[in-house]
Amino acid sequence: MKPIAITMGDPSGVGPEVILKTFVLDSKVAKNCLVVGVPAVFEKYKKHFSFEIDIVEINSPQDYDPAKRGTMQVINPTSFQQNNFPVGEISEKSGKAAGESITYAVKQALEGNISSVVTAPIHKVSFQSAGFNFPGHTEFIADLCGVQDVAMMMAAGSLKVVLATIHTSIASIPELITKENIIDKLQIIYRTFPHSTRVAVCGLNPHAGEDGKFGDEEIKYITPAVEEMKQQGFPVFGPFSGDTIFSSAIQGEFDVVLAMFHDQGLIPVKLLGFDRGINVTLGLPFIRVSVAHGTAFDIAGKGIASHKSLNEAIKFAKQDK
Amino acid sequence: MKPIAITMGDPSGVGPEVILKTFVLDSKVAKNCLVVGVPAVFEKYKKHFSFEIDIVEINSPQDYDPAKRGTMQVINPTSFQQNNFPVGEISEKSGKAAGESITYAVKQALEGNISSVVTAPIHKVSFQSAGFNFPGHTEFIADLCGVQDVAMMMAAGSLKVVLATIHTSIASIPELITKENIIDKLQIIYRTFPHSTRVAVCGLNPHAGEDGKFGDEEIKYITPAVEEMKQQGFPVFGPFSGDTIFSSAIQGEFDVVLAMFHDQGLIPVKLLGFDRGINVTLGLPFIRVSVAHGTAFDIAGKGIASHKSLNEAIKFAKQDK
Repeated sequence: MKPIAITMGDPSGVGPEVILKTFVLDSKVAKNCLVVGVPAVFEKYKKHFSFEIDIVEINSPQDYDPAKRGTMQVINPTSFQQNNFPVGEISEKSGKAAGESITYAVKQALEGNISSVVTAPIHKVSFQSAGFNFPGHTEFIADLCGVQDVAMMMAAGSLKVVLATIHTSIASIPELITKENIIDKLQIIYRTFPHSTRVAVCGLNPHAGEDGKFGDEEIKYITPAVEEMKQQGFPVFGPFSGDTIFSSAIQGEFDVVLAMFHDQGLIPVKLLGFDRGINVTLGLPFIRVSVAHGTAFDIAGKGIASHKSLNEAIKFAKQDK
Repeated sequence: MKPIAITMGDPSGVGPEVILKTFVLDSKVAKNCLVVGVPAVFEKYKKHFSFEIDIVEINSPQDYDPAKRGTMQVINPTSFQQNNFPVGEISEKSGKAAGESITYAVKQALEGNISSVVTAPIHKVSFQSAGFNFPGHTEFIADLCGVQDVAMMMAAGSLKVVLATIHTSIASIPELITKENIIDKLQIIYRTFPHSTRVAVCGLNPHAGEDGKFGDEEIKYITPAVEEMKQQGFPVFGPFSGDTIFSSAIQGEFDVVLAMFHDQGLIPVKLLGFDRGINVTLGLPFIRVSVAHGTAFDIAGKGIASHKSLNEAIKFAKQDK
């Protein structure tokens, strides 16, 4: 199996620190993983936290040697050699290093030299200030892959939630809930997961509209989309009331929940996930998993950031190979 | 202290069964509680489940004798003497008995003869078919009290959530999020809870709009409402992103969360609440607490309904005296 690439993320945030923790404290998890980023950043934290590990610079995924245990093998495709990134601050330089690392990892994944990409967090403002004109990580990676239709899936433990709409105002959501959009998201789910995957679709409105009493998007668009997928033989159910479906999913009645909007899907994931949550991009030519947390500038460099989400992200990337 | 009245709820649902369970299995919780409903319904379930308890009919709250332990003292203000209500079915008769019980209990609370009202669930369709033209339990009780401004609070364990909007379509929510509505709900909270209560206000949009990127209701209405309450000296905070604030509240940073809409507030409560959730109506002249579950027609009469939510509702009614 080709190695998994872990991108460094924004070097001013907690990314390098949590990556280092996984390699040092959970080296089994880090098995078959290489890192894409600036080795000097990892050297700094290694020294700072007195971690014992060899940080070895390699030139390409082909140079990766899985037999070399107790090492962190790092490819540096960035414009930077030294560690002079600020800590816990917005910085164009950090945004540039993060973006260059992602670009390289995605290119290698598309060429088949690595099996999947696990990303540490970037800071949107730093990233954009470095000239990467994308709303976020996911949109940038989709663009690098030349893919239009991706879907964000958040997972925490056994709960997997895909979002039909993401970063858009509540006022704009009703017009985005179309039969086509729902079917599109369901098809992306079934391109990633087996045909037998049981998907529960949320309603948009309270109690899924209660037969049209509080909104008719369920009747007009969501139910017809569910019915069409059912007719094609997929085990798709709903629409269900958003306030009860997540308990059913956790209890094992469904494998994936398709939520209609951000808070509906992310409230349960974050509440159950704590530091275990991960974020998966569905619809790409390869598996891309991200930690669910951000750069956490307030605790960057302090040694207190948890690497559990990164561990979960790597585990997810491995099981889906 | 005046007794607490527990209304029977819809006799075709699980209400009578869970009330009986609390009196038999958790008699300490049932201390200082009388029941309003049809005694024959409780006699039936007592026999059916071989419960040992004396069911004693009394005529008014003044007749309630707290010293009589091991009894369930029931006032019957309804048109019904016998138990010939169907089980697990919609029924005009059941709706009528439920409505008459609530009407009586609220009247007695308004007259100061009982200290608070705990309600078992009603079935909306049965209730409305009996001529009670209200969207639900809460609106009916508010009307009986002649009160316009009430707020629904859901609680599960240490999490308390008040809703700014409830049963309304997602499309209609933005126009309901006004500075006045938010201040109104905050004032209702502070009429019930002490001045020191720390209230976290949710944003409407993802990430509370992210500085206006995804909607401007935070900038236009929610933030100004929070600021005005702060200027009046109340510890009100926010607006916060809906997907992270509930974890903070559970960890003790806030006492109450004001959610902007149904799913935003009820998803966390139901996920954390399981069978412990309760529903409190704020803004009435007395405390009214409801179980968080419904009539559960599918399991009515089977002896498997949990009385934990009722226990929690009674405990809440007692602690707030």
